[in-house]
Amino acid sequence: MKRPKIVVLGAGYGGLTTVAKLQKKLGVNDAHITLVNKNDYHYESTWLHEAAAGTLHHDRSRVKISDLINSAKVNFVQDTVTAIKPDEKKVELQDGEVLEYDYLVVALGFEAATFGIPGLLENALTIGSINKARQIREHIDYQFAMYNNEAEPKEERLNIVVGGGGFTGIEFVGELANRIPELCKEYDIDRSKVRVIVVEAMDTIMPGFDPELIEYAMNSLEARGVEFKLGAFLKEVRVDGITVEQNGEKEDIPTMTTVWAAGVRANHLVEESTLEDNRGKVEVTPELRAPTHEDVFVVGDCALVWNKEIDRPYPPTAQIAMQEAEVCAHNLIALVKGGELEPFEFINRGTVCSLGDKDAMGSIFGGKKIFGWTASFMKKVIDNRALFKIGGVGLVLKKGKFNIF
Amino acid sequence: MKRPKIVVLGAGYGGLTTVAKLQKKLGVNDAHITLVNKNDYHYESTWLHEAAAGTLHHDRSRVKISDLINSAKVNFVQDTVTAIKPDEKKVELQDGEVLEYDYLVVALGFEAATFGIPGLLENALTIGSINKARQIREHIDYQFAMYNNEAEPKEERLNIVVGGGGFTGIEFVGELANRIPELCKEYDIDRSKVRVIVVEAMDTIMPGFDPELIEYAMNSLEARGVEFKLGAFLKEVRVDGITVEQNGEKEDIPTMTTVWAAGVRANHLVEESTLEDNRGKVEVTPELRAPTHEDVFVVGDCALVWNKEIDRPYPPTAQIAMQEAEVCAHNLIALVKGGELEPFEFINRGTVCSLGDKDAMGSIFGGKKIFGWTASFMKKVIDNRALFKIGGVGLVLKKGKFNIF
Repeated sequence: MKRPKIVVLGAGYGGLTTVAKLQKKLGVNDAHITLVNKNDYHYESTWLHEAAAGTLHHDRSRVKISDLINSAKVNFVQDTVTAIKPDEKKVELQDGEVLEYDYLVVALGFEAATFGIPGLLENALTIGSINKARQIREHIDYQFAMYNNEAEPKEERLNIVVGGGGFTGIEFVGELANRIPELCKEYDIDRSKVRVIVVEAMDTIMPGFDPELIEYAMNSLEARGVEFKLGAFLKEVRVDGITVEQNGEKEDIPTMTTVWAAGVRANHLVEESTLEDNRGKVEVTPELRAPTHEDVFVVGDCALVWNKEIDRPYPPTAQIAMQEAEVCAHNLIALVKGGELEPFEFINRGTVCSLGDKDAMGSIFGGKKIFGWTASFMKKVIDNRALFKIGGVGLVLKKGKFNIF
Repeated sequence: MKRPKIVVLGAGYGGLTTVAKLQKKLGVNDAHITLVNKNDYHYESTWLHEAAAGTLHHDRSRVKISDLINSAKVNFVQDTVTAIKPDEKKVELQDGEVLEYDYLVVALGFEAATFGIPGLLENALTIGSINKARQIREHIDYQFAMYNNEAEPKEERLNIVVGGGGFTGIEFVGELANRIPELCKEYDIDRSKVRVIVVEAMDTIMPGFDPELIEYAMNSLEARGVEFKLGAFLKEVRVDGITVEQNGEKEDIPTMTTVWAAGVRANHLVEESTLEDNRGKVEVTPELRAPTHEDVFVVGDCALVWNKEIDRPYPPTAQIAMQEAEVCAHNLIALVKGGELEPFEFINRGTVCSLGDKDAMGSIFGGKKIFGWTASFMKKVIDNRALFKIGGVGLVLKKGKFNIF
C-alpha cells in the first residue's frame, strides 16, 4: 500500500485552510502531506492594509506556520516555488529541491498587476506581503520625518496617492485617515498640509457595491480629509510625482508616495506552467481541478470560478479562497480514502469593507446593508472567523480582534 | 525710571537657566525680559542621542517653553535669529522684527562642524535637534524596512557608521547597540548581518577620559557588536558608502547611514557678528561678557572659557552652560538692581557617559571612577538635575528618568 503524496503550494487562506482540514481528517498512514511556503509564517493578507498604514503591528497579522500545522502529519518546507511541471508531476523549488506529487494543490495567491503604466513598477509601492506592508509604513513615516528637515519643505513628502478605489485601496485609505493625525503630532506637521488622494479609473469607488454604501464610505473618508479623483487615469508614476488624466485633462501631482492598490493578478508561476487557460488563472472544473490535469487542484486567487448569475468571474477574496479550500480538502480526502467528490458552490456570506478602526460598511445575509459600528463589529467577527478556520480557538485568542469599543 | 530690556537668545541649557533665575529674582518692574527661540519648545540636547537611536521618544526630551516661563515676567518670541548687531544694540529676526536691548545674552548653542570632508554635509546625518534626531531614527528604521524588499539585499542598508568616538558618538552607539536587536526582530533580519562601526581619528575613544573607563566602555560596546576603527580618518562620505583611511590604507565601507558626531562649532551667527574672537566663539571676560561689548553676555557653546590647569578651553557641555547661566543671571541682576558682579569659575561635578539604558561609565566627586549600574544611575540623577534647574520639581516629575532598575 503506497501513501499518496499531497503537495500544497502556499500557506495563504487557501493553502492553509486545505492543510488544516486534511490534517484533521487524514491519518498519518493515509497520505504524505507537504506544505511549501516562502516564509515560515502565514499572514492575514486582508489585514495588510492596517500594517501598511501603521495602525496594526504586522506581527499581529502573522502567525508561525509551525504553530498551525501538526508536524506529525504535515511536512513543512520553507522555500520559494520556481516552477510547476504538471506533465512530470513535479514542483521545483529555489534551493534546487524537486518535489514529486500524486496530488497537487496550487494556492500561490496574487501579485500586483501594473497594466504597463510607465514608472509604476519602479516607483509605486504595493500592499502585497508583510515585507511590503512594513516598507510602506516606514516609507510614509520617513517622508514625515524628512519634511521639517529641509530648508524648502517639499509638499510631495506629505501627498499620498492611492491608485485604486477598490476594496484594498479604500480599506487602506480608511486606516491612513486615522493614522495621519498621529503622524502630524509625531513630526510637528499641520494636518491641513497633508493630502491623501485616491485615483480611480471608474466613475465610482467600490464598483459593484450598493450606491448607499458607497456614499456612506465617501462621506466617512472625505470627513477625514481624503480626496477622490474618479474617472481619473494614472498615466505615469515618477519618484517624486504622478500624472493623472481626468476629463481629458492632465494634471501633475507631486508625491513621493504612490501606493498601488488597483490591480492584482494570479501568481506568475501559473501562467508559466501549462495549467493556465484564462487571464493568467486556471478556470477550474466544478471539483476545483485544472481542466488539463485532474491531479491538480487550484484554489484562491490562482483559480477562476464563474459566477453564472452575472456571467462574470467571482472576484478573488479570502472568503472564496477558504470556501474553495474546504471543497478541495474534501475532494482530496475522497480521492485518498474513497468517497464522492463534491462540486464547489460559492455561498456569499456578505462583504464588509473597513473604513478605519471604528467605521465600516457592507452587506451581509444576502443583501442587508450595515454601516458604522455595526459593520465595524461584523468586520472583526469576519476577521476572527478566518483565524478560527485556520488555527482554531487558540489562534483567535492569540491574534483576534477584540477592540470593539 | 526706565526698565532695562534684557534679551536672551536661545532656550537651550544656557538661555533657559538664565531666564529661570532672572524670572525668580527680578520683579515685573525691574526689567523687561524677552526670550527668543526658533521652536516653541526646549529640548534636552544631551538626550538627543536616545531619540536618534529610537530608544527614547523625542517628546520625552522636550518641553513647551510656555510651561517653563512666567509669562507675566518673560515675553517669549518664537522666531529664528538672523543677525546680532552689538554696535547698534539690536538683534534681527527672520520675520523682519528687530529687537533692541540694553543687555543681551547670547546662548545660541552649537552646529555641526564638518572640517571640509567631501560629501559630509550632503550625505551624513547629525544629531543636532529634535527634527534631526527623529530623522535619524526613521532613516535607520527605513533601511531595515527596505532590506528584505530588494531582490539583491544591500549590506549598506545594515551598516551604520558613526563618525567620532567622543561623548556624543559613544552615547549614541550605546543606545544603538540596544536598539539593533529590536530592529532585527521587527524586520526579520539576522543580527549578525548588522554592523555598527565607529570611526575615530584619535588613537582612542573618549580622549581625556581615564584609560580604565575607556577600556570599560569599549568592552561593553564590543560585547554588543560595535566595531571600532581608531586612528582612522573619514576621507569621503557618499550616499551609499564612505572611504576611511587607517594606517595609510584606504578602505571603502558600503553604508547608507553615516552619523556625524565628531565635531561641533558655535552657532555661525557669532562668527558673523563682531563679537567673535577665538575659533568662532567669544572668549568671554571673567564676568562672561564679550570683551568688546560689556552689555553682551555669552554662555554655553558660543562662549570660550579657558581651563588654566591644562591650558586648554573647557569643552562645551550642558554642565558648564548651566553653571555659566547661573553666573550670567547673577551678574544681570546685579546690573539691574545694583550689587557686585561675580566671576565665573567652573566646578567640575564629574562626567558620566551613558553606554545604553543599563550601562555607563564616568568620574564624579573630583575623580572617583564609576561603572555599570552605579554610573547609569548617576547619569539619570544628572539628567534629572538638569530638568530641575530648568523647570523645578514639576518638570522632573513630568519628564524625569526613573527607570533605574
